[in-house]
Amino acid sequence: MESPRIGRTVWAVAEGYIPSQGSGGGRALESHETVCLLNAGPREAHVDLTLFFADRDPAGPYRVTVAAQRTLHLRFNDLGDPEPVPRDRDYSSVIVSDEPIVVQHTRLDSRQSALALLSTVAYSQD
Amino acid sequence: MESPRIGRTVWAVAEGYIPSQGSGGGRALESHETVCLLNAGPREAHVDLTLFFADRDPAGPYRVTVAAQRTLHLRFNDLGDPEPVPRDRDYSSVIVSDEPIVVQHTRLDSRQSALALLSTVAYSQD
Amino acid sequence: MESPRIGRTVWAVAEGYIPSQGSGGGRALESHETVCLLNAGPREAHVDLTLFFADRDPAGPYRVTVAAQRTLHLRFNDLGDPEPVPRDRDYSSVIVSDEPIVVQHTRLDSRQSALALLSTVAYSQD
Amino acid sequence: MESPRIGRTVWAVAEGYIPSQGSGGGRALESHETVCLLNAGPREAHVDLTLFFADRDPAGPYRVTVAAQRTLHLRFNDLGDPEPVPRDRDYSSVIVSDEPIVVQHTRLDSRQSALALLSTVAYSQD
Repeated sequence: MESPRIGRTVWAVAEGYIPSQGSGGGRALESHETVCLLNAGPREAHVDLTLFFADRDPAGPYRVTVAAQRTLHLRFNDLGDPEPVPRDRDYSSVIVSDEPIVVQHTRLDSRQSALALLSTVAYSQD
Repeated sequence: MESPRIGRTVWAVAEGYIPSQGSGGGRALESHETVCLLNAGPREAHVDLTLFFADRDPAGPYRVTVAAQRTLHLRFNDLGDPEPVPRDRDYSSVIVSDEPIVVQHTRLDSRQSALALLSTVAYSQD
Repeated sequence: MESPRIGRTVWAVAEGYIPSQGSGGGRALESHETVCLLNAGPREAHVDLTLFFADRDPAGPYRVTVAAQRTLHLRFNDLGDPEPVPRDRDYSSVIVSDEPIVVQHTRLDSRQSALALLSTVAYSQD
Repeated sequence: MESPRIGRTVWAVAEGYIPSQGSGGGRALESHETVCLLNAGPREAHVDLTLFFADRDPAGPYRVTVAAQRTLHLRFNDLGDPEPVPRDRDYSSVIVSDEPIVVQHTRLDSRQSALALLSTVAYSQD
């Protein structure tokens, strides 16, 4: 079986919320949100993220590159350019790539004594 | 890259259940269900929600507006017009918009000593 | 806005596992798996569920009816005809309806001191 | 109702992470990731998995067979040929089958005192 061309170029995640608090335990267990970006194809993907909020104009674009045949699990917590992502505030994200990619959204919430997880494949279209 | 037209106009969430109990901790940590509505487009979206139950006629429509380029994380707990959403009772929801939107459904369940989360992109069609 | 015809007629849930243990707390908090079946349409839906296992022939069909404009959150734990669903055993399910429906799959796992949840919209086609 | 031909032949899971730690409790409760592969059709499915990483070339293919009308809940933890899956490291997976299948991705995280779960239907195309 030949490796197929996998994914789409436009993705959206309507959920988004980073709790400012966590139960400690270092980077692995701090409360965070991630978009996992899979580029299974043969060419580098240039990806623009835009964040949408309830009561202000969108932020971004945040620009990242995903190398050919690589995955990038990008934490929203780590974004800083053009501005950091506010904590304890609702947001959504739109992801546009110049190559087909696959996007999944995950949150780890460690505000309480045992962590909680959510995850879903994102909404996609071409 | 130009911002694409993102989303669909008809969405459905088959799961729905708001526990009446929670472990306290204020609004952020009370048991709740949310539909996240992302309107990434240039025009205001007028959205109708209808709730379906096991043993009675549907409730609604609940009417909300999502401004252009904004997100609305709407808690079912907060709905009141035309009627509140009953607790401890199974329901489903259908969301219809006059502009393309993206919908994701999340529950935070804090009945026990550590919260639990679930989330999924909703079912969509045009 | 007119109520649209919502859903599809063929659905599949590849995940399936009911833990035999739970932390108590009654029916609401026992470990369980559910398929939420939303029939937003104007006609009764006749739904057949078939369960697939790792090492034996499929079980079913299990037959349920979802009334027009109603939702049915069906626990796999409660299925008994033609046979109960085994605990602590991997399975998958296929759901076929004669009317369009929307299907979401949820598990509540209460084996440990705080419950965990997972949920996803099912795979669908026509 | 006749059993329909269900599923697709190309699937991708962008999320992937196996914590090296767990709270004990045996195989059922150790931290793990699973792809659930449902083959509801009448012929054996030959499935190739390829894993993608952040900073090295892909691993695989891992080859598994899913018998006709059977499900296989495959733990990434158990993969060994051509190489084991590293712990505490981001990855993604692509699943290609010669017969239509349905794929769902689940993680059980038992690093803390109560387990957490996530699950989503995978991204699919033909």
